[in-house]
Amino acid sequence: MSSITFRRAAPDDLMALVALLADDPIGSGRESAGTDPCYAAAFSAIDDDPNQLLAVAERAGRVIGVLQLSFIPGLTRRGMWRGQIEGVRVAAGARRDGVGRAMLEWAIEECRKRGCGMVQLTSDKRRTAAHGFYEALGFRATHEGYKLAL
Amino acid sequence: MSSITFRRAAPDDLMALVALLADDPIGSGRESAGTDPCYAAAFSAIDDDPNQLLAVAERAGRVIGVLQLSFIPGLTRRGMWRGQIEGVRVAAGARRDGVGRAMLEWAIEECRKRGCGMVQLTSDKRRTAAHGFYEALGFRATHEGYKLAL
Repeated sequence: MSSITFRRAAPDDLMALVALLADDPIGSGRESAGTDPCYAAAFSAIDDDPNQLLAVAERAGRVIGVLQLSFIPGLTRRGMWRGQIEGVRVAAGARRDGVGRAMLEWAIEECRKRGCGMVQLTSDKRRTAAHGFYEALGFRATHEGYKLAL
Repeated sequence: MSSITFRRAAPDDLMALVALLADDPIGSGRESAGTDPCYAAAFSAIDDDPNQLLAVAERAGRVIGVLQLSFIPGLTRRGMWRGQIEGVRVAAGARRDGVGRAMLEWAIEECRKRGCGMVQLTSDKRRTAAHGFYEALGFRATHEGYKLAL
C-alpha cells in the first residue's frame, strides 16, 4: 500500500469530498450534487474559521478520505480544549485497508498538537461496525449523543 | 418566580461560573479554584471566537445558570450548521424550578437564529435524570458519544 498523506482541503477538492459524503448508506439520502452552492458556502465558512480543519487523506494523488476537526475552547475541566471529529468518510475502494485508522490517528495527533485534553465524536447507533473501530482506537462510549433537528 | 434573563457572559462572571461548574457531582473533582489562571485564559479563547457563545442565566441580579453554545459549520447534510450545547449547569438553589428548561429553550432558539439545522449535545450516561429532561425537549439519543482523554 503506497503511503497516505494528510492535508487541509482546498476548494478544488470540493466535488470529490461531496461525492465521498454521498457514498455512504446513511449519508446518501442527505446530500445533493457537489455543484449545489450550499457546499461552496459551507467550505468557505469552515476554511475561514481558524478553529476548523477540514482534512483530506490522499494516496497516489487521489483523495481517499475526509474528516473535519473542530477545536473547541471551553471553561469545564479547567479550561480544557476539545478536539471534535465529524464527517469521517473513506472512499469505497479504500475501506478495510487501514485508511480509517490512519486518518483517526492523524486527527488525534493534530488535537494533541493544538493542546486539546480530549478528543470526542458521536457515531450513529446504527453504525455498529464503526463502534468497535473507535473503541480499538481508545475511545469510550461514556456519553449519550443527543440530536434535535430544527 | 421572577423572570430569567439570558446574556453573554462577561469577565466579571468568571468566579461565579467556575463555582457553578464545580457544584456538580460529576464536575466537582474536575475543577479548581476560580482564581486559577486557566479559567481566564479559557474565557478569553471563548469570548474571542465569534462561533462560541458562553451564556449566563440571571434572576434577580444573580447568575443561576451557565451553558456554552458552539456554532459549527460543516459540509455534511448539505452544508448544515450545527449548534452544540456544552457545560450546562444550574445553581443548586434554582434546580427543579424550570430554569434548566428555560435555558435550553433559549439556547435552541439562538441556534435557530444562527441558521443551524441541528442542535446537539452529549450527556454522561451516569446523568440518568438529565436524559428524560433532554428527551422532553425533543432531543433523541440517536448517537453514541465517544470520548478519548489525551
